[in-house]
Amino acid sequence: MRAIIPFKKSNAKSRLGTLLSAKEREEFALAMLNDVAGTLFASGCFDSIDILSNSIIDIEGANIVLTEKGLNEALNEYLQKMSSHSMITPVLIIMADVPLVSSKNIKDLTASSADIAIVPGRMGGTNALFIRDPASYHVDYYGASFLKHREIAIRNGLVVEVFDSFNLSTDIDEIGDLAEVLIHGEGQAAVLLKKFGFSIAENRGRVGVKKAHHA
Amino acid sequence: MRAIIPFKKSNAKSRLGTLLSAKEREEFALAMLNDVAGTLFASGCFDSIDILSNSIIDIEGANIVLTEKGLNEALNEYLQKMSSHSMITPVLIIMADVPLVSSKNIKDLTASSADIAIVPGRMGGTNALFIRDPASYHVDYYGASFLKHREIAIRNGLVVEVFDSFNLSTDIDEIGDLAEVLIHGEGQAAVLLKKFGFSIAENRGRVGVKKAHHA
Repeated sequence: MRAIIPFKKSNAKSRLGTLLSAKEREEFALAMLNDVAGTLFASGCFDSIDILSNSIIDIEGANIVLTEKGLNEALNEYLQKMSSHSMITPVLIIMADVPLVSSKNIKDLTASSADIAIVPGRMGGTNALFIRDPASYHVDYYGASFLKHREIAIRNGLVVEVFDSFNLSTDIDEIGDLAEVLIHGEGQAAVLLKKFGFSIAENRGRVGVKKAHHA
Repeated sequence: MRAIIPFKKSNAKSRLGTLLSAKEREEFALAMLNDVAGTLFASGCFDSIDILSNSIIDIEGANIVLTEKGLNEALNEYLQKMSSHSMITPVLIIMADVPLVSSKNIKDLTASSADIAIVPGRMGGTNALFIRDPASYHVDYYGASFLKHREIAIRNGLVVEVFDSFNLSTDIDEIGDLAEVLIHGEGQAAVLLKKFGFSIAENRGRVGVKKAHHA
């Protein structure tokens, strides 16, 4: 089985720009990627872990597949290459911004008996896709991609499972999401946020984050 | 096994006030409660389903336990009464605003071998608590209650499990959350939102909701 993680280093996580500099955001995005790739590696489920990136990065245990293409085009080309090379092994596409993912999540997800297992992200997104036969499927990210991915599977006559996981559905995009990393995270992303001075803040019973100014 | 759902009808879901009238919010809160109670009932896991409420409401298959007390006080009194009446049956406390919960979620959660199973809500909340022995535990909601509930269990020497579910972690509080109900919901809450004129809206790749004005 193969895993592929799309990743964009340049101007990563722009919606965190109010509290993090471009350099900090890049560092944070890499920490999340390391958490995800490390969990995939630790799960022992994969023969290869590929990172689809437009720049060279160094992630232990992973190959870098360089591309200048957009997300959908690059992933569909990847799926197509797998099938044209007669690689009929399953593939897991997983986003780089789900640092809470556990090894058990990956084992459970890839043990799915369905043709396609979709892990919803927040607000209609797709955080992971388990594709049993790369030749039978194509991806369509952005917008309510969860609905599109389910529809593509149904249209192609495939059996779909919706995989239910808070860890995997929690993609980190906005400042508020950082609270989830601080509360539940156990990897490099959580460590880095604390190093940046972030901590949990409570305001009239509601939880958020605050950032200390370093001396 | 018993289940208890805390519920507040008056001024329910005030953060939805920008797009829903007080009457609509009350109706929506009741629809979510019906979805949750119906799922508990359908799971077949419970001898009794109690709703802790400050007003009389009619929910099929559930008993109403009237109280004027605050959430923590009312729930801790409920746990204490169970133990003083020597009811050493497990209890599931579940919030009324998690309409995506499935029967499988309830079966899996109550099959936990831990003393305490905690289901995190978003932003540090607690959406469900499975308590094996009511005499051994007390609750402390508001703020980062997930961390408090884990800490109370550890302090009392109890084995804790964190139950990982997108369905159960998705509490519906804000306008944006309504998109989750429209995308993933299959119960009364989803039907009602559509009746109110809500639908999914996309704006430059991001998903939200819009509300049609009825003629």
